[in-house]
Amino acid sequence: MSVDGFVAGLGQDEEHPLGVGASALHEWIFETRTGRGFIGGEGGETGVDDDLVAAGFDGIGATIMGRNMFGPVRGDWATMPWLGWWGPNPPFHHRVFVLTNFGRDPIEMEGGTTFHFVTEGPEAALTLAREAAGDLDIRLGGGAATVRQFLDLGLIDRMHIAVVPVLLGSGERIFDGAGPSGYTCTSYVGTPRVAHYHFAPQSA
Amino acid sequence: MSVDGFVAGLGQDEEHPLGVGASALHEWIFETRTGRGFIGGEGGETGVDDDLVAAGFDGIGATIMGRNMFGPVRGDWATMPWLGWWGPNPPFHHRVFVLTNFGRDPIEMEGGTTFHFVTEGPEAALTLAREAAGDLDIRLGGGAATVRQFLDLGLIDRMHIAVVPVLLGSGERIFDGAGPSGYTCTSYVGTPRVAHYHFAPQSA
Repeated sequence: MSVDGFVAGLGQDEEHPLGVGASALHEWIFETRTGRGFIGGEGGETGVDDDLVAAGFDGIGATIMGRNMFGPVRGDWATMPWLGWWGPNPPFHHRVFVLTNFGRDPIEMEGGTTFHFVTEGPEAALTLAREAAGDLDIRLGGGAATVRQFLDLGLIDRMHIAVVPVLLGSGERIFDGAGPSGYTCTSYVGTPRVAHYHFAPQSA
Repeated sequence: MSVDGFVAGLGQDEEHPLGVGASALHEWIFETRTGRGFIGGEGGETGVDDDLVAAGFDGIGATIMGRNMFGPVRGDWATMPWLGWWGPNPPFHHRVFVLTNFGRDPIEMEGGTTFHFVTEGPEAALTLAREAAGDLDIRLGGGAATVRQFLDLGLIDRMHIAVVPVLLGSGERIFDGAGPSGYTCTSYVGTPRVAHYHFAPQSA
């Protein structure tokens, strides 16, 4: 997230997965060993940033994401044979549940990733993800609208927000209007590139 | 500012200068030596947080603030003889220009602070503050609406944003709708209590 609260830019298209001008939000990830490995690269730094990127993959048995995180295609899927941003072998290696208003058959990719398309809303996606994940955790990938939906429904147990030192000026916000209530900060660490915050419901 | 973007809570009154539930935003200030001195206390920590609080006072020759930062009184001043939150000897020790829709005679306090009430808007306040400050800097104290006005007018040369690891859930935002454009981060440092960001216009 930028300091002014944006988690993605506007104008998402095939060349701008995060929207125009928002790539600065993810640069720190690709400086880490885990982040670089995520996109098939080598090297990268270890340390706190890397540990926290890795924590987003360790012990995850299913992922939920919104349609815009899956791709820039809008409307009926027939208009474009989109298979996600991540190539033939996506770095999830588990079932991924994509929230959408347009049904589509599951897509089995290489490496154990299968994309499922859920038209019945967040709670239905969570039920399916729970079955898929078993005892493992479920990651809510994003984007902004999907996180807001799950926050509003009280379905988020742990939230990691990484704030990068930029002002984007426009884009998509997680926190808009009223913010989430009842969350407490369970850890905060500032590194040279990012301020990392973890939040959990106060009762947890 | 909270992680969800609030710089003050709702429901400001005489007992809640920052609005209800928002005192967590300022706690770190009163852990510093300078912040504690600001309210007439002793002790407090030195270090980065303290240095940055002190930087908000050093070399400042005038302060501009919105009416809500000056007090919880609304409407005509005659309804309440409000002299600010800061007691008979406010910690400014220079001229303070309060933006308001209701004119009022200047109030000369102890210790060199005089409150002036400006009804002609932000640019008029800035002109008066420039005359008062001479070669020194002008501090824009807040609150949220006042900072937004000055940002929209492009009148802010340097901006220090201190993000504390809390989610407030409601309150007043600096960054709402579109954020400011054309600002770049000139420094960022994370301390155990706060992430400090400095921004300046890209051309500066």
